[in-house]
Amino acid sequence: MRNSLFILLILLFLPSTVYADETTVLNALNSVWVVTAGALVFLMQAGFALVESGMSRAKNAVNVLMKNYMDACVCSLIFWAIGYGLMFGVNQTGWIGSSHFMPSNLTQWDWTFLFFQMMFAATAATIASGAMAERIHFNAYLIGACMIAGLIYPIFGSWAWGSAHGGEGWLKAMGFIDFAGSTLVHSIGGWAALAGILVLGPRLGKFAVNGEPRSIPGHNLSMVALGGFILWFGWFGFNAGSTLVASPDIGKIVLNTHLAACSGALGYLLSTRLFKRAILLTGTVNGSLGGLVAITAGCATMEPHFAILTGITAGFITFIGPRFIASFKLDDVVDAVSVHGFCGAWGTLAAGLFFSGDMFNTGRIGVQCLGILVAFIWGFGMAFVTYWIIDKTIGMRASSLHEQRGLDFTEHAEIGYPEFQNTTALNTESLHSKK
Amino acid sequence: MRNSLFILLILLFLPSTVYADETTVLNALNSVWVVTAGALVFLMQAGFALVESGMSRAKNAVNVLMKNYMDACVCSLIFWAIGYGLMFGVNQTGWIGSSHFMPSNLTQWDWTFLFFQMMFAATAATIASGAMAERIHFNAYLIGACMIAGLIYPIFGSWAWGSAHGGEGWLKAMGFIDFAGSTLVHSIGGWAALAGILVLGPRLGKFAVNGEPRSIPGHNLSMVALGGFILWFGWFGFNAGSTLVASPDIGKIVLNTHLAACSGALGYLLSTRLFKRAILLTGTVNGSLGGLVAITAGCATMEPHFAILTGITAGFITFIGPRFIASFKLDDVVDAVSVHGFCGAWGTLAAGLFFSGDMFNTGRIGVQCLGILVAFIWGFGMAFVTYWIIDKTIGMRASSLHEQRGLDFTEHAEIGYPEFQNTTALNTESLHSKK
Amino acid sequence: MRNSLFILLILLFLPSTVYADETTVLNALNSVWVVTAGALVFLMQAGFALVESGMSRAKNAVNVLMKNYMDACVCSLIFWAIGYGLMFGVNQTGWIGSSHFMPSNLTQWDWTFLFFQMMFAATAATIASGAMAERIHFNAYLIGACMIAGLIYPIFGSWAWGSAHGGEGWLKAMGFIDFAGSTLVHSIGGWAALAGILVLGPRLGKFAVNGEPRSIPGHNLSMVALGGFILWFGWFGFNAGSTLVASPDIGKIVLNTHLAACSGALGYLLSTRLFKRAILLTGTVNGSLGGLVAITAGCATMEPHFAILTGITAGFITFIGPRFIASFKLDDVVDAVSVHGFCGAWGTLAAGLFFSGDMFNTGRIGVQCLGILVAFIWGFGMAFVTYWIIDKTIGMRASSLHEQRGLDFTEHAEIGYPEFQNTTALNTESLHSKK
Repeated sequence: MRNSLFILLILLFLPSTVYADETTVLNALNSVWVVTAGALVFLMQAGFALVESGMSRAKNAVNVLMKNYMDACVCSLIFWAIGYGLMFGVNQTGWIGSSHFMPSNLTQWDWTFLFFQMMFAATAATIASGAMAERIHFNAYLIGACMIAGLIYPIFGSWAWGSAHGGEGWLKAMGFIDFAGSTLVHSIGGWAALAGILVLGPRLGKFAVNGEPRSIPGHNLSMVALGGFILWFGWFGFNAGSTLVASPDIGKIVLNTHLAACSGALGYLLSTRLFKRAILLTGTVNGSLGGLVAITAGCATMEPHFAILTGITAGFITFIGPRFIASFKLDDVVDAVSVHGFCGAWGTLAAGLFFSGDMFNTGRIGVQCLGILVAFIWGFGMAFVTYWIIDKTIGMRASSLHEQRGLDFTEHAEIGYPEFQNTTALNTESLHSKK
Repeated sequence: MRNSLFILLILLFLPSTVYADETTVLNALNSVWVVTAGALVFLMQAGFALVESGMSRAKNAVNVLMKNYMDACVCSLIFWAIGYGLMFGVNQTGWIGSSHFMPSNLTQWDWTFLFFQMMFAATAATIASGAMAERIHFNAYLIGACMIAGLIYPIFGSWAWGSAHGGEGWLKAMGFIDFAGSTLVHSIGGWAALAGILVLGPRLGKFAVNGEPRSIPGHNLSMVALGGFILWFGWFGFNAGSTLVASPDIGKIVLNTHLAACSGALGYLLSTRLFKRAILLTGTVNGSLGGLVAITAGCATMEPHFAILTGITAGFITFIGPRFIASFKLDDVVDAVSVHGFCGAWGTLAAGLFFSGDMFNTGRIGVQCLGILVAFIWGFGMAFVTYWIIDKTIGMRASSLHEQRGLDFTEHAEIGYPEFQNTTALNTESLHSKK
Repeated sequence: MRNSLFILLILLFLPSTVYADETTVLNALNSVWVVTAGALVFLMQAGFALVESGMSRAKNAVNVLMKNYMDACVCSLIFWAIGYGLMFGVNQTGWIGSSHFMPSNLTQWDWTFLFFQMMFAATAATIASGAMAERIHFNAYLIGACMIAGLIYPIFGSWAWGSAHGGEGWLKAMGFIDFAGSTLVHSIGGWAALAGILVLGPRLGKFAVNGEPRSIPGHNLSMVALGGFILWFGWFGFNAGSTLVASPDIGKIVLNTHLAACSGALGYLLSTRLFKRAILLTGTVNGSLGGLVAITAGCATMEPHFAILTGITAGFITFIGPRFIASFKLDDVVDAVSVHGFCGAWGTLAAGLFFSGDMFNTGRIGVQCLGILVAFIWGFGMAFVTYWIIDKTIGMRASSLHEQRGLDFTEHAEIGYPEFQNTTALNTESLHSKK
């Protein structure tokens, strides 16, 4: 009987990692969880496509959808070919991975891990697409996306998350906390978007009247709302799958994720009351996405009360951020810089500020700030160089004639809604300040 | 060897609840399942948004979407703040919970449980939104939704499902069966919808010609179909997640759920043949949703044959119910009262009638009828008082001018499809009786 | 201590099937996985509905959606009634199952298995709907779908996958590899589509000008893109759920699935460059779906490098196939024959060619070719007879007047988008060869 109890105790308390490389029930359970979560993260591509296309004009709907569809494809392949090795390959210096390129003969678990990480790389790459919508060449965009998924994201990733195959990234070694990637995935994507719109310039007419930004309404807000819901749904996999093991911890993670999303929308709503502006659907969706981006870093290490605080603040940022960006005459079609860049930075800071059991530790906050800063320098700098070279070689920007005609017609020879008569969009902007 | 066999037997037959508070594989597995199911239930919000918006006119598309998006946000937060405590807090009298408000320091499992239950509260609240579409003020709607998710739903819930933290609800103690909430979630939502449309009155023009109801076609039936599919998909989590543990029982539950949905659509189709009416897409989707609502109570305790019977009957109810409601000059835009109220009541009765191994037990049927009746009195009564007070204070109904112009323009200063020219909808109603 | 080690070893290496009929954690885990996967497969119905409706004209949007919605319903019920028994019932001859019709009193596991398999039957049946869109009577279509889900698919299935309840299908006994159904589900559906369009004839105007095929643009490409994403998402459940047990193997399966989908889109893109054609969104989505169809047979037995090769080839097939089909004056609205029929056949061959550890085994390749051929003869032949009889009795094809008016109006008395003015679609085909 003593033996029996001994085994039962082992079975009850044995940490799951002990079994990780064995063909056991725990391995199967971990696979089920991470595969399910990875599939949810994949679906976020549909969410991005809907939000970004819905916020663009009908004449560019196909182009925006195509960018999202194809970048998921090419970024996944490029991440398999080189990104995974750079990010998770053997990392002796802490600065770059150097094995596992075009991997084959991996363990069962590694295939699951690669699948999950591949979806993250595609997410980082796709964030920039919305900001640059309605004026960028399709081919130029795809090359930029490949650079993000193949080099910019995985190299930064090797610093903060590397490595699964030996060695440790230098930022990770310093204790940088970014559980599911507020900085790694979202800020990197957001700063790339910032570099992109800087190189591209604004859409025709965006600042035509006295240099003031003009609202250019998206063509389909039902798509925006659906995209917001789908992103939110996928985010449960994004955050809770980042445990990389099936664990009872995921309950708190998804709860924090959900509360922050709700609070983000609420923060936006409160901002509209405070500044007496209309409650826009586009703003509400972006508010919730800002909350989701912000909680991504600290969802596993924060109490629910602070998840709500993190989310509300993010909602406020998504209200203020776009006005700040527009003041520089920058044209971010979907406010990706605010939602992913700014809220990602805020969330990474919040993960340091509200760390359960050790709040407001200045050492931790310092490391978080360092990570945020490094991400900006690397992400913005590398993306700027990338887009600048693309612009000087094959060209980034569609011709004015093509932009006016719409990229669907000129780049794809296909129209999103060929049977519905387009009219000049009713401009409701004058009403925005009356609410 | 005897020891070994003893342990194997223990491991094979030990009920999963024994491990529930331990950091074990079973706890991880339960978390994975309930988190996955909760995420699916969340996605139902998108389904409701699509069905309700698609069945409304284009000029109110943004408003309907916004109601669904924001009620998910505020209802989740209000349920965390007070609903959870009222429903699942310590319940000594059997009539109300009184602890765990704004919970912190819960166990790992409780966070998962709170996440899952939060989604149910948001579902109950959102059901009413479709019925009251196209004429209710946005703020008035949100206050009503908060009342449902924060008070009306959780207090009834404490009677029938409470409590996880000590004490037992009085209806639960009597043996009331409502496995996943045909009555708790759907009928409560449906009766609130009934109260709402009674206070609000019908849309302009609905009964304009000789007092006869006029069909007002929804603007986008593709959205309705997609919403139906998404709700159906999410319902697998709604019903099978209500086991609250990972269990082989979920196979039968999802099968019953699926068969009832299929049969609901079939029941609607057979009704159209019987009464020589056209087979509408909106009716088909509502038929399947009626089947889903009806099987929700008995999905775990019914044989598949009876799930089919329950579903077909529900499909018939979704055909007859709207005609019954309209005969009182009530205007239910999406037929929420029939789909959620009537089918929920029917399903709760069916759970009593077709209880496996003990069918047609009059004692059980009596308790089921009591629960159905109590839900109606409480849900309808409380919601009516709530909406009446809102109406007399801040006002429920948008002005006629705003209703004619569309709430998107007047409440949000944003248009759903600004580039597509709206025309007067082609009225196809005269054809409905010709098929 | 020796006993303890003995038990631990048993627990670590015991194949999960040993527990399959016990109420254990493994059984719960398997249920969780297969139920989750089955729900994902269900969602593919939404994907098909969106892709097919989006590729049709607005005047037939409701009809196409209704076909997809109702066939999911009736096919599930018919599969429960007779299909399951024919496919998985006791199969003594290897040619047909003969028990488990309208099953009741099954084991817990069998309910899960039935749920999962029901979704596959509905998938096989729904593939044909898109090909025959815009001209087939609703009732005629539904009868055809019931024949596929109730007879054609399950009988072939009994040869290649049967039986779960005793006996072995003759193709399975020969070693035929079709892990998740490239041939069983997709080719059978594709060949049924081929038979259907042969009986139906092309849409009015498709070959009107000099007998050359004319592009008839779909009304909503946003729906097509979203449908593609949803199908892709659901396919993770389709392929990885086909393990029928929770297993660490699923990581490689979903990775192969994803890489093949990415490569399929890339293969289409490369084809457009090679033949100097425009990069269409519809083509890109079909390219990825072709990759998914092709990897379905070999996803569990192929290395990722070969999954990419399988996918790229499939993408090429989806580019060439529709031109081949059109050269016979056949009108396949969504290119279902190419995507599901041709790519399914290619994938089944690829599963033989690239079998890990035993590539290019001529014996295996021979069996694969036999299976592909038998599927064509059975699937095409039976479907042709079915549709021919339907055509000669109740009639397959809507009248020319109804076809011109649109089936939404004539078959359902309901319009998809009643408020949006339809215009004659802008024909962009002349641009397709200029890119």
